[in-house]
Amino acid sequence: MNTKNRRLFNHAPGNSKLVEQEERRSDLGFGAKLTDASSRLINKDGSFNIVRVNSTLWDRLNIYNRLIMMGWFQFLSWLMVFYLVANLIFASIYMLAGPETLTGISDEVLNGPFWKCFFFSAQTLTTVGYGHISPANFTTSLIAAFESMIGLLSFALATGLLYGRFSRPAAHIRFAKQSVFAPYLDVNAWMFRIINTRDNQLINLQVTATLSRSESKPDGTSSRKYYGLSLERSKVAFFPRDWTLVHPITAESPLYGCTPEDLETSDAEIFISVQAMDDTFAQSVHDRYSYRYEDIHWGRKFPPMFTVNQQGTILLDLDKLDDTVEIELN
Amino acid sequence: MNTKNRRLFNHAPGNSKLVEQEERRSDLGFGAKLTDASSRLINKDGSFNIVRVNSTLWDRLNIYNRLIMMGWFQFLSWLMVFYLVANLIFASIYMLAGPETLTGISDEVLNGPFWKCFFFSAQTLTTVGYGHISPANFTTSLIAAFESMIGLLSFALATGLLYGRFSRPAAHIRFAKQSVFAPYLDVNAWMFRIINTRDNQLINLQVTATLSRSESKPDGTSSRKYYGLSLERSKVAFFPRDWTLVHPITAESPLYGCTPEDLETSDAEIFISVQAMDDTFAQSVHDRYSYRYEDIHWGRKFPPMFTVNQQGTILLDLDKLDDTVEIELN
Amino acid sequence: MNTKNRRLFNHAPGNSKLVEQEERRSDLGFGAKLTDASSRLINKDGSFNIVRVNSTLWDRLNIYNRLIMMGWFQFLSWLMVFYLVANLIFASIYMLAGPETLTGISDEVLNGPFWKCFFFSAQTLTTVGYGHISPANFTTSLIAAFESMIGLLSFALATGLLYGRFSRPAAHIRFAKQSVFAPYLDVNAWMFRIINTRDNQLINLQVTATLSRSESKPDGTSSRKYYGLSLERSKVAFFPRDWTLVHPITAESPLYGCTPEDLETSDAEIFISVQAMDDTFAQSVHDRYSYRYEDIHWGRKFPPMFTVNQQGTILLDLDKLDDTVEIELN
Amino acid sequence: MNTKNRRLFNHAPGNSKLVEQEERRSDLGFGAKLTDASSRLINKDGSFNIVRVNSTLWDRLNIYNRLIMMGWFQFLSWLMVFYLVANLIFASIYMLAGPETLTGISDEVLNGPFWKCFFFSAQTLTTVGYGHISPANFTTSLIAAFESMIGLLSFALATGLLYGRFSRPAAHIRFAKQSVFAPYLDVNAWMFRIINTRDNQLINLQVTATLSRSESKPDGTSSRKYYGLSLERSKVAFFPRDWTLVHPITAESPLYGCTPEDLETSDAEIFISVQAMDDTFAQSVHDRYSYRYEDIHWGRKFPPMFTVNQQGTILLDLDKLDDTVEIELN
Repeated sequence: MNTKNRRLFNHAPGNSKLVEQEERRSDLGFGAKLTDASSRLINKDGSFNIVRVNSTLWDRLNIYNRLIMMGWFQFLSWLMVFYLVANLIFASIYMLAGPETLTGISDEVLNGPFWKCFFFSAQTLTTVGYGHISPANFTTSLIAAFESMIGLLSFALATGLLYGRFSRPAAHIRFAKQSVFAPYLDVNAWMFRIINTRDNQLINLQVTATLSRSESKPDGTSSRKYYGLSLERSKVAFFPRDWTLVHPITAESPLYGCTPEDLETSDAEIFISVQAMDDTFAQSVHDRYSYRYEDIHWGRKFPPMFTVNQQGTILLDLDKLDDTVEIELN
Repeated sequence: MNTKNRRLFNHAPGNSKLVEQEERRSDLGFGAKLTDASSRLINKDGSFNIVRVNSTLWDRLNIYNRLIMMGWFQFLSWLMVFYLVANLIFASIYMLAGPETLTGISDEVLNGPFWKCFFFSAQTLTTVGYGHISPANFTTSLIAAFESMIGLLSFALATGLLYGRFSRPAAHIRFAKQSVFAPYLDVNAWMFRIINTRDNQLINLQVTATLSRSESKPDGTSSRKYYGLSLERSKVAFFPRDWTLVHPITAESPLYGCTPEDLETSDAEIFISVQAMDDTFAQSVHDRYSYRYEDIHWGRKFPPMFTVNQQGTILLDLDKLDDTVEIELN
Repeated sequence: MNTKNRRLFNHAPGNSKLVEQEERRSDLGFGAKLTDASSRLINKDGSFNIVRVNSTLWDRLNIYNRLIMMGWFQFLSWLMVFYLVANLIFASIYMLAGPETLTGISDEVLNGPFWKCFFFSAQTLTTVGYGHISPANFTTSLIAAFESMIGLLSFALATGLLYGRFSRPAAHIRFAKQSVFAPYLDVNAWMFRIINTRDNQLINLQVTATLSRSESKPDGTSSRKYYGLSLERSKVAFFPRDWTLVHPITAESPLYGCTPEDLETSDAEIFISVQAMDDTFAQSVHDRYSYRYEDIHWGRKFPPMFTVNQQGTILLDLDKLDDTVEIELN
Repeated sequence: MNTKNRRLFNHAPGNSKLVEQEERRSDLGFGAKLTDASSRLINKDGSFNIVRVNSTLWDRLNIYNRLIMMGWFQFLSWLMVFYLVANLIFASIYMLAGPETLTGISDEVLNGPFWKCFFFSAQTLTTVGYGHISPANFTTSLIAAFESMIGLLSFALATGLLYGRFSRPAAHIRFAKQSVFAPYLDVNAWMFRIINTRDNQLINLQVTATLSRSESKPDGTSSRKYYGLSLERSKVAFFPRDWTLVHPITAESPLYGCTPEDLETSDAEIFISVQAMDDTFAQSVHDRYSYRYEDIHWGRKFPPMFTVNQQGTILLDLDKLDDTVEIELN
């Protein structure tokens, strides 16, 4: 802290046009500095292309999150592995304490003392405790008392994890793989389409779209800029069928006058963020998606996804979500 | 992507009155295209008249949702069926492994080897493990160790499901079966009535009403339009008794000047959406209902639902919710 | 639906001053009709003085809510009763199936066949299953298999209930038993005081106060009116110590010029509603309270509740919450 | 309640400039009265320097909160202690009831009758129930039936606690240990930096900063005042990398013209409050931090925390969070 800096600070101009301008700029949280084409922020699968260095082991493991987010097959496999390893460890401990202190059946019945210890461990960990094998001295009884407590706590944990996995809020929204530039009323518009793949209701759906593109500054360098794209309708009370979201290309749109080449040159990408309320669990759910310049098809539109049968029921064909047909632009 | 389309797009008019008008239109999320009388969007039970085609098996099963939403009798029956089937499967496996390896009692005691296997399975799955039947070789011990783990996980799952069912936010609001057109101050009003059927408090109740009707366009076709109906009072802090919601028919109302025949001709339906906070669990709860033109009774009003006894206690008679009496309209 | 009514309706005036006035009226959800002194809406304990008649058995039982809200002693007693009754029922069933089919120990050991059945039931319901008593025929084995499943589900339910009870959002806010009229700056003000009785943080606390009083109409009848009372500060970011809320009696206040007699005559009551976020669980919590005219002390103020010790630690004495001292009003 | 006070009150001026001014004052909830340097409200670890006196035992224990908030080692130790104590208590009860009524093995096998009782208790509490020790009279059977129920309820409780601990919303935001005064556009600014230490996404991040300082009144006394500090950007949609928050020192800033000495003299402290949504669990999460005058470094700035590797992946080095480098102020 030096005196010169402090004095300079006191003489700083109090009113700044630059500050006011800066405050009006949009930002998704990625920052403006990462602009070279080689550093993409969003991977194809929607995750961020960022690796954390020097984070703590606990933060890196992030156990609860992982166990909740991983696939069911992987989760159940981990449970099996844990059960197997726990029994192997306790079997070894019983072997050290002396397998002859587990009495009731002869070792030959279960292929030798190790497996007798292993199955006794399994019967203790799950608290099934048949009793045809039982601990016959102080040490083994103590180990068994400890193991049965560990067993109950482990399954308590598994109970919590299973509930956490099932009750996790999930939106089940599917986005059309490509968005389109199509005529809309007397102008053109950029459009994309979403559906709810499940029968449970999503209510109070809200959608925001943000354009991110690289722009050249007068000094020759370029920086990434963000623009909110106003949607003709960004909120609906119910979401029973497909919904096509429309950003009309009026003079206010940051896409006004753009050509496909412009989008490619500026490495344009549009981020979509969806928020809704799951009616069954009254939980807030979120989803996000992004359309890059190559996912924007010009002069195409989305044909209807539904047909109405004789009984007046609307049949919504989910396979038609990605369909587009050619159309003349305005 | 052809050059012609792109060029046309660049010449598109930047400012559009049509876009501005479109943005002000109301929409519940059903869309404007489904207008023929044969295709109803809302079934009598409040669900949407939509069938999803080509959805994935997992999305169609929607297991957690179903197990949470189904009735208690159905849920408990499924638990019983699962328990029975699991035991039948494991009994068959023990039969394959050799019922003679389950020792302790003779087969005759439990009506033959299959039932011995079946009951051993039940004692293992629930981890009760009496031990009067016990696995006496490596293979059966292994199967039993696996089964007891499956058993604990299954009951862990059941624990989560039971908690999920009980703790699911539910509004317990009942709507009067019919709404009325009744005099209100110096005009008339459309009114409906709701009650909280339970003693637990709902707070910060908010209600919205949306009119949906089919309107003819100048070109002879018709499309479905949506209008928000402003309520004289749409929000209350507490909801201890019945609440009659009132939409006054002033010149601003989309119902101004309508006759019952108009409503029928335009296939009018009014959607009600209720949002509140359950005071016990601080959970947000939702409910919805809809009144079709035939559920609107003209020139009737709701009589009071309550009486006050000698002790000054208010007796709210839930059976009177649907009562209406005739009244002269303004 | 008669033609006359319909015609009248069509001639109704479209614009109504009365409707506009009505829309500006405050309402907590109690309605204006209940005005006679004999019908109080709020009991001393904060509950509403309303009894629901003709509600369904299921709604009246409201089982989950009750089991969550009842005291701990009552809850644990119900668990004990359930456990006892379940064992008595199953013991009776085993008696019917024949107590001689439960083998392993002689009946005399446990004071006769009924208690043998009873303890076998207990060992099965809790899945402890020692095996010194065991089912020795098909029927008893079947009953035991069923009972062990019921046992696991019951304890699954108890798990959910215990978690639901512990994790229920609760505000732990205590209100001073009486509110005061005290001088405030250059006017007077109505004030009340609240504290957080626990060390866990409540953040973003928001408080609203609503005055309810009976007012005479020109025609001699009286109806209950509601007025929001503006608080000098109604929101704080943190709530570490006591907080005195202040409604200054300016010309805009509905209490301007009121005497204690006025408040008593008009049966005045002020409802307080508090909303906050529990920082530990990120749960929204609520609390409410009401001050009746007799709980308003004129010409008194709240003395400080805290002292600062030598180490600079603030000692907040919860017993001083209700203290007031005399003070001259402005 | 005396007549004089009441009359005075009725003559109180209805309109007060002082009340209007007071309403515009900022307050975090600490109050203005605690201003002497010896009474700090915020401890170094972020907790409030307040001790509650005369709170109820139940409020002071605050059991659920403590068991959720304590470290894992402490929590698991408490579980072990509970398990041990419960078994010692029940072992003593069995000793009183007569250890000879627990039959199956001779007392010598487990080092005497007490340890036989202890291990029988452990086998009953965990419901493992081998059965090689079993209750052989009415009294012991009754105690065992009771103990097994207690055991199941205890582990039900442990299940709830484990789930509550894991699912507790936590923000995992780390704040730079010091904030800086650095040049910003054409002025200077006060800046601080935060990162998300985990890979799970935080969305809709919102940050507020409040300056608290002691100010002298004309009468020589001083009181603590609070000012919101406007941030150049206080909200982002995503939070994938580090985020530097900027409060520009324009003429509107309460820090305009301040020197480091001013901040020290006025005992200045800036409170930061962060609110976000955890994308995985759709839970609202909170965090707070405070920078005291000695944590503000003048004429320093935050260098970038990230490097980009050959594959274009951004490497965010968490160890660089606290780095600052010298820079000339404007």
